[in-house]
Amino acid sequence: MKERIIAYFDERPDQFMSGEQLSQFLQCSRTAVWKHIQELKKQGYRFESVTSKGYRLIEKPDTLSAATIIAASGQLSVFSQLKLHSTLDSTQSEAHRLAMDGANHGTLIIADSQQSGRGRHGRPWFSPAGQGIWMSLLLRPVLSLNFAPQMTLLTAVALCRTARQSLKANVGIKWPNDLLIDGKKISGILIESVGEDELVRYMVVGVGIDCNMTEDDYPQELTGKATSLLIETGNRINRSNLIVDFLREFDELYNLYMESGFAPIRTLWESHSVTLGNPIKLRIGDRLVEGIAESMDEIGALVVRWPDGSTEKIYSGETQ
Amino acid sequence: MKERIIAYFDERPDQFMSGEQLSQFLQCSRTAVWKHIQELKKQGYRFESVTSKGYRLIEKPDTLSAATIIAASGQLSVFSQLKLHSTLDSTQSEAHRLAMDGANHGTLIIADSQQSGRGRHGRPWFSPAGQGIWMSLLLRPVLSLNFAPQMTLLTAVALCRTARQSLKANVGIKWPNDLLIDGKKISGILIESVGEDELVRYMVVGVGIDCNMTEDDYPQELTGKATSLLIETGNRINRSNLIVDFLREFDELYNLYMESGFAPIRTLWESHSVTLGNPIKLRIGDRLVEGIAESMDEIGALVVRWPDGSTEKIYSGETQ
Repeated sequence: MKERIIAYFDERPDQFMSGEQLSQFLQCSRTAVWKHIQELKKQGYRFESVTSKGYRLIEKPDTLSAATIIAASGQLSVFSQLKLHSTLDSTQSEAHRLAMDGANHGTLIIADSQQSGRGRHGRPWFSPAGQGIWMSLLLRPVLSLNFAPQMTLLTAVALCRTARQSLKANVGIKWPNDLLIDGKKISGILIESVGEDELVRYMVVGVGIDCNMTEDDYPQELTGKATSLLIETGNRINRSNLIVDFLREFDELYNLYMESGFAPIRTLWESHSVTLGNPIKLRIGDRLVEGIAESMDEIGALVVRWPDGSTEKIYSGETQ
Repeated sequence: MKERIIAYFDERPDQFMSGEQLSQFLQCSRTAVWKHIQELKKQGYRFESVTSKGYRLIEKPDTLSAATIIAASGQLSVFSQLKLHSTLDSTQSEAHRLAMDGANHGTLIIADSQQSGRGRHGRPWFSPAGQGIWMSLLLRPVLSLNFAPQMTLLTAVALCRTARQSLKANVGIKWPNDLLIDGKKISGILIESVGEDELVRYMVVGVGIDCNMTEDDYPQELTGKATSLLIETGNRINRSNLIVDFLREFDELYNLYMESGFAPIRTLWESHSVTLGNPIKLRIGDRLVEGIAESMDEIGALVVRWPDGSTEKIYSGETQ
């Protein structure tokens, strides 16, 4: 039924169609028409709705192309296979399930929407269909567990450089791995590591990027906190191309890291940071503390100068 | 039926009973008697078997006592609840399942036997009923992921001190966390850590200790490599008491570590090590290298001096 509605609008570009016309064409009630339109909106279709004129289709959703992603990523050392889903509970959870079943390094899981997308500290992640990139990359690096947090910083650098180069977006990294435009969060990174004694067994690199949401698409609790690349750059994002651009950038940094260690990643992180040189409020366990974020040390800890002049290396914490 | 056999022997201490006598008493065939005896042996009962005389019960298995463990561990900060099973696939796997269902810090899982006990690198762990300690402790420390490997070293120290103090066993730590007596492995430690970005989400501290095996109990592939506390000390081990001794020692070191950091743990590890000062062969990724294990650095890396006089910090690797 929804396909017929889209075909109907496709044959009448830029025209308004009244609910009455649609219900006659589809031989169903106007209430049923309204319901189908609502469902199409959820899938990323956009309609202009004008009283007395009816509906006009103004935009189709961006569709994820497995062919585009596979064709461009085949040579990358961080990519081996693509698992593309229209919906999943969570790409992170699916990656863990596949990892436990023995899936290879480079298995990439992408979902057009997530039913219960996960952010840091078990928080939900808003993951509507068609509007963002929700993906998880399974890696099996030969890496000591104590270095695992460096992958978090590497991923933030890769995502920041992708947004700057591909989209000319003025993105900066907030410690440790949030990407901000004008103080608003545009993406999230969640890296889940599973270690055995002193070794990494596998890692799941989770990336969420808000692409094509308008301001109306956000639930109230995210207003002023989250933003999309569409809102910030004015351009609709082709998600498949952005995924490919990110994978290429990530692959380059990953190989650099495996060959040369953390030093070049640290330099890049520092140059893209909006945290360094500025005041920072941190929650460390039960402590709520304020200081100046001064630098990143050679293993990836944030060096913070406290009001009394002393400095401390911060390995983990929640910025306020 | 098996209970009746044990009661029968209990009433006739130190006497031999022929298969014929047992089959008449139990009113079953001699083949059935033989099968029951074999099953009792698997549960840890030991029989002397002499042609023309029959069977004599010479030893009953050590039974794990939940009451003993709970009574002695109630005040420990690393203990909150006990899950005691007669058998499990693997206490590590059960701990992960419970962790994902939200189980608390301090959940201790013990199995009398494991069907598919796990060692390092996915290797099987020999876990027969009644003869060893097979346990996993779920911890939810507020700890940066880069420090997780220090818990591996802490656990080795706790186990080594327990064996030395409680059993007067001459145990030493082989880097990173094997416990040896005269070059033979007496226990294994497997710590599985799950991290979120730069933080530990939870850890499962797995400990396996060979307690009451005789040399005949080991499969051929472990001959010369593994040994038990019974073989080495000549004394049968009360496993519940040893578990309690370990938990107390582990609790003390865990609290010391959380308050004072890694420095005191490092000192203890060094003093119990059989690795330091000696030649070491290591497999690091694809490299097979030899040097002298010189010291442990302040974060827990092994400092190795190579034949050319240079030193390197080793964060992970497999000793040969």
